[in-house]
Amino acid sequence: MDNSVSPMPEAPLAMMEVEKTPSSTPMHDCPPPPDKRYDDDEKSTWQCGSWCEYIFVVVTSSILLLSAIVMTVFWVIFYRQGYSLEDPGKEFNFHPTLMIAGYITFAGFSVLLYRICRCCSNLIVKLCHTFFHACAIPCIVLGFLAVFDSKNQTATPHFYSLHSWLGLICMGLFAFQFVIGFFSFLVLLCCENATYKFRSTMVPIHASVGVATFMLAIGAAITGFTEKALNDIGRDTYSTMVEEGIIINSIAIILIALGILVPFAVRRTNSPASFKVYVTETI
Amino acid sequence: MDNSVSPMPEAPLAMMEVEKTPSSTPMHDCPPPPDKRYDDDEKSTWQCGSWCEYIFVVVTSSILLLSAIVMTVFWVIFYRQGYSLEDPGKEFNFHPTLMIAGYITFAGFSVLLYRICRCCSNLIVKLCHTFFHACAIPCIVLGFLAVFDSKNQTATPHFYSLHSWLGLICMGLFAFQFVIGFFSFLVLLCCENATYKFRSTMVPIHASVGVATFMLAIGAAITGFTEKALNDIGRDTYSTMVEEGIIINSIAIILIALGILVPFAVRRTNSPASFKVYVTETI
Repeated sequence: MDNSVSPMPEAPLAMMEVEKTPSSTPMHDCPPPPDKRYDDDEKSTWQCGSWCEYIFVVVTSSILLLSAIVMTVFWVIFYRQGYSLEDPGKEFNFHPTLMIAGYITFAGFSVLLYRICRCCSNLIVKLCHTFFHACAIPCIVLGFLAVFDSKNQTATPHFYSLHSWLGLICMGLFAFQFVIGFFSFLVLLCCENATYKFRSTMVPIHASVGVATFMLAIGAAITGFTEKALNDIGRDTYSTMVEEGIIINSIAIILIALGILVPFAVRRTNSPASFKVYVTETI
Repeated sequence: MDNSVSPMPEAPLAMMEVEKTPSSTPMHDCPPPPDKRYDDDEKSTWQCGSWCEYIFVVVTSSILLLSAIVMTVFWVIFYRQGYSLEDPGKEFNFHPTLMIAGYITFAGFSVLLYRICRCCSNLIVKLCHTFFHACAIPCIVLGFLAVFDSKNQTATPHFYSLHSWLGLICMGLFAFQFVIGFFSFLVLLCCENATYKFRSTMVPIHASVGVATFMLAIGAAITGFTEKALNDIGRDTYSTMVEEGIIINSIAIILIALGILVPFAVRRTNSPASFKVYVTETI
């Protein structure tokens, strides 16, 4: 990681050191060696165990994030008659696909970037993070419109189920996060020294609410899949362990695995031996 | 917090310091002052913000943990005809009640103890943690038997739904955690110096798997509530926003809030200003 392209190049050294080694305890006043950097140290302490864990977490999470959307598309095409804007039933099928793409795959990769991109500057990671989240927005909006229009056409009531309640909360949090993140961590960089304190206060809040939104999206998805299985396959058929039921359950299990792995990956200290700063706790 | 009743009274000082200040970076060799303790420092850095956060987190989590079980009992008694071993439908009602009591309320308080009990010795907290989890076991076993027997009587197939898959994984993880936790953190204390390294390796694993089990239990519960709403209230009635539907959704929202708050509470650093060790990362 190249510190020269840090988003805070003009920040005072003391300030930068706080960012680089926030996990050091203030118990005793031992000044950090001036030419020793967090990132240099990080490289040297990255032993085999850390690399294995890094590769395991990144590769497994990436496979699961892609599997979730691929399996959803597979399920819709082969078991739900595919996509169409003409038929309300097929129009509905855009909903799970776009929501999984937006809330899980794009948002998941966006969160995971802080773990994957260990060799890029912080600003590049932030821009990629914003880009992935920006890609998620049309998916979520169109996914919402798909189910809204599909239900309107079949005169089905809206917003009565737990799934819809969770989905609405999730959309609100997502919008809040995007606006706060965009202004706090990109726009306010125009006067970065003056806004340093505010931005550093916002980092753990943004990270925690972001992980909570991701978990909430998974909660909404698994209740949605349960609804779909009971309403469309039907309880009697579902209980005979039909193929479609197993596929739906498997997609949901993948989402649950992501709900455990992604927050773990992004919150994990860089090296098990040194209890370093969380990757989400850099500005 | 009294260090003299630490579970490792005979551990070498260096070893104890590692436990007390694991968040300190190994970047430079600055020996910790011998008479300065992590706990002393912690008290001094507990400013108003930390106390407010502590009280908010503990009080809110406790209210939500109790609300979850109280609202479930209320729902069963007033909307599901209460409990009985004679009737399969009423026998089933033991299932949500006991599972919420075991997986959520007892397990939640058990996890939260590490945040609540700031003035007790580590050993007492561990014993209380074990006690709460031991209370959860009969709830979970009886809750499982209740649904198994109820379904047998009505000839309903088992283990086809996402809810049951999540429930089974959750039971496996819970049993694994209890056995590992009991042996690692209580039995192995008989030769604590010899087992220190093993136990300190197990702490973050036990904490992470424990939080994952709690989240999985919440996932199982919200899919269970969705199933119950669609199967027993029926989609058409549920979609008219009947009282029971709103109550079921509200219980699930409480569980989701717990799924966000409890892991946050237990993983939160003690003081926002000092990036301290996680409360779960003490042995």
